[in-house]
Amino acid sequence: MAEDISPISYEDLAEIEDAFAEVDDEILRRQYDLSRPLYEKRAQAVAKIPSFWPLVMEQAPMEIEDCITHQDSAIFAEHLTNLTVTRPDIEDGKKGNPRSVNIKFEFSPNEHFTDRVLEKRFWYRRASDGWTGLVSEPVKVNWKKGKDSTDGLTSAAVALWNARKKVGDLTAKGLPEYRALEKKVEHWNGANTSFFTWFGWVSGRRYVSAEESEKASQEYAARKEARKHGERSEAESPEDKDEEEPEDDSLVEVHQQGEEIAACLAEDVWPNAIRFFTQAQELDDDPEADFEDDDLDDEDDVDEPIDIRSLVQDKEKGRSRDSSGPPSKKIKT
Amino acid sequence: MAEDISPISYEDLAEIEDAFAEVDDEILRRQYDLSRPLYEKRAQAVAKIPSFWPLVMEQAPMEIEDCITHQDSAIFAEHLTNLTVTRPDIEDGKKGNPRSVNIKFEFSPNEHFTDRVLEKRFWYRRASDGWTGLVSEPVKVNWKKGKDSTDGLTSAAVALWNARKKVGDLTAKGLPEYRALEKKVEHWNGANTSFFTWFGWVSGRRYVSAEESEKASQEYAARKEARKHGERSEAESPEDKDEEEPEDDSLVEVHQQGEEIAACLAEDVWPNAIRFFTQAQELDDDPEADFEDDDLDDEDDVDEPIDIRSLVQDKEKGRSRDSSGPPSKKIKT
Repeated sequence: MAEDISPISYEDLAEIEDAFAEVDDEILRRQYDLSRPLYEKRAQAVAKIPSFWPLVMEQAPMEIEDCITHQDSAIFAEHLTNLTVTRPDIEDGKKGNPRSVNIKFEFSPNEHFTDRVLEKRFWYRRASDGWTGLVSEPVKVNWKKGKDSTDGLTSAAVALWNARKKVGDLTAKGLPEYRALEKKVEHWNGANTSFFTWFGWVSGRRYVSAEESEKASQEYAARKEARKHGERSEAESPEDKDEEEPEDDSLVEVHQQGEEIAACLAEDVWPNAIRFFTQAQELDDDPEADFEDDDLDDEDDVDEPIDIRSLVQDKEKGRSRDSSGPPSKKIKT
Repeated sequence: MAEDISPISYEDLAEIEDAFAEVDDEILRRQYDLSRPLYEKRAQAVAKIPSFWPLVMEQAPMEIEDCITHQDSAIFAEHLTNLTVTRPDIEDGKKGNPRSVNIKFEFSPNEHFTDRVLEKRFWYRRASDGWTGLVSEPVKVNWKKGKDSTDGLTSAAVALWNARKKVGDLTAKGLPEYRALEKKVEHWNGANTSFFTWFGWVSGRRYVSAEESEKASQEYAARKEARKHGERSEAESPEDKDEEEPEDDSLVEVHQQGEEIAACLAEDVWPNAIRFFTQAQELDDDPEADFEDDDLDDEDDVDEPIDIRSLVQDKEKGRSRDSSGPPSKKIKT
C-alpha cells in the first residue's frame, strides 16, 4: 500500500464523485417518472380526508416542527387543504436539474391572510466560485391587518427583492430596503417568528441567477470532461483560485434553515405523507399516548410540543369516527 | 368534500403505499446496478489512501458517533483498512429484497482481536403478525485475552444463538444462556460499552426466520393482489387480529440501535464516503477547526468528541502531506 496520498488519487476521487452525481440525477429522474401517477392517485384519495395534511404536518420531522409556532399550527390545523411538491425542471421528460423543486401549500379562506395558495420555487444552482445549492425568490404573504406573524419579515424580504430587481443587481447592498431588512433580521437574530418566514427565504449564502449558474455549469462540465480523458485541466478550477470571501447575504436572510426545510418537505414529508398520517391516527387510537400528553401538560409551557392533532380533533368534534381504522400498521406494540 | 373518512379511503391509501413500495424497490435495484461499477472503482482508488476509512468513520453521522468509544476510535484509526457494503439478495440481477444488506469491516493485525474480517449480514423480513424490518445473526468477535471491550456481550449473544439453534427454537427463553445474557444486558442497561457490541445485534423486536418471512410475504402479496382488484379481502389481515403481545426479545438484545446503525452505514456512510473523507481533510486544513478543538479540550472529558482524526494524524506523523489537496470543495467559507 502506498504511504503517500498522490495527486492522482484525489483526481480519481473527484472523477468518481462526478460519476456518482450523474447516477443520482438519473435515479431522481426515474423515481420522479415512476412516482408521478401514484402522487396523483394519492392526491385524489386524500382529498376525501380533510384532516390529512394537517395531521401529516403534525407528525412532520424535527426540522419542521422546530419552525412551527402555536399560531402556525392553528393555521395548519384549520386551513391547510393541500400540499403539492413537483420538480418542474424534469416535468414531462425535460432534462433540467432534478433537484429543483416547487412546493405549493393550499389554504381555505381564513382570518390570517388573503392567499389561497402559497407556492415557493427552489432552483438548484451553481455559483461562479463552485458553490452549489438551492436558491429561491421571496414569496409575498398577504397578511390581513394585524395578523402578520412574521412581524413584517416576509414583506421586507419581498421589498428588498423588488428594489434589487429595479436597480438590476440582485445582491445590491446599498439600498434603504437592505438596511430596513437587515435591522429586522438583526432584531430577531434567528429566533423563530413563524413558519411562514420561510416563504421569504432566498439562499443559504446569496442568490445565484440562472445566467451565472448556466455559465458556471458549462465551465464545470468542461473540467469534468477533461478529467475524464485523463487531462490535468489547464483552466484553474474556481476552488483553486485565491478569491476574496464570497458575497454573503446572511445579514438580510429572514430564515436560517430555508434549504433544509425545502429538502425535508420534498424528500421526507411529501413521499412519506401516508405514513405520517397513519402515525398520527395511531397516536389518536393509543390511550397511552393520550396519557403522555396529560403528563406533558404539567411541564413548562415553552417546551410543550405543538399539538396539531388536538386542534384537528377539536375541529372534527362530533364527527363520527370510522371504525375500519388506518391502513396496516408496521409495528404493533 | 366529504366530512367522514370512509373505509374506502383507507383501502385506497394502503393500495397506494403498496405501489410506492414497489417503486422504491425498483429504484433501489436500479441504483444498485448503476452504482456497482463506481463502488468498485472507488475501492481501487481508496486502497491507495490508508487513512481513508478511518477518516470517514471520524466524520460519521451522530447515530454512529454516539456508539463509538475512545477505544473503538483507536481501533478504527489504527487498524480499519476497508469497509464494503453489498446487497447480496439483488446481486447479479437476483430478484430478492433490495433492503437486505451485508456490511464488511476489514482490519489489519492488531492487539484487540484475531479477526481480520468482521462481516454482518442483515435480512429484511416480514413476521407473521405484519411487522417488517431487518434481522441479523450475532457475529462472534474473537477478542484477545483481556481485550474484550464489549464485556462479553457479543460472546454471550453468540452463545444464546447457538444454544437456541441446538434446541431448534430461535426465540426460546428457558435456556441458561438466555438468563446469562439477560443479566449482562440488564447490567449495562443500554449504556454504551463499544461499537463492536453491534456485531451481536439480532433484531429490534425478535428474530424472524426466512421461512416465517416467506410465508408472511406470500399472504401479504395475496391480500395486496385482492386489494388491487377492488375486492375487500376475505382473509383477515394480521393487523386486524386480536393477538397477544408479539414475542419480544429486547431483554437479551445487546444493542439498542442495531437497525439504525446498519441503515446509517449502508445508506449514508457508504454512498457518501468520499464526501466524509473530504470533510475530514478540510477540517485538517482549517486553522479555525483546530482552534475549536482546543476550546473543547477545556470541557468535561465525558462530552469530548472522539477525535479519530488526531489519532490518524499521530499515526501519519512525518509522512509528507500532498499539496494538491482534497477534491473540489462544495462550499467555501
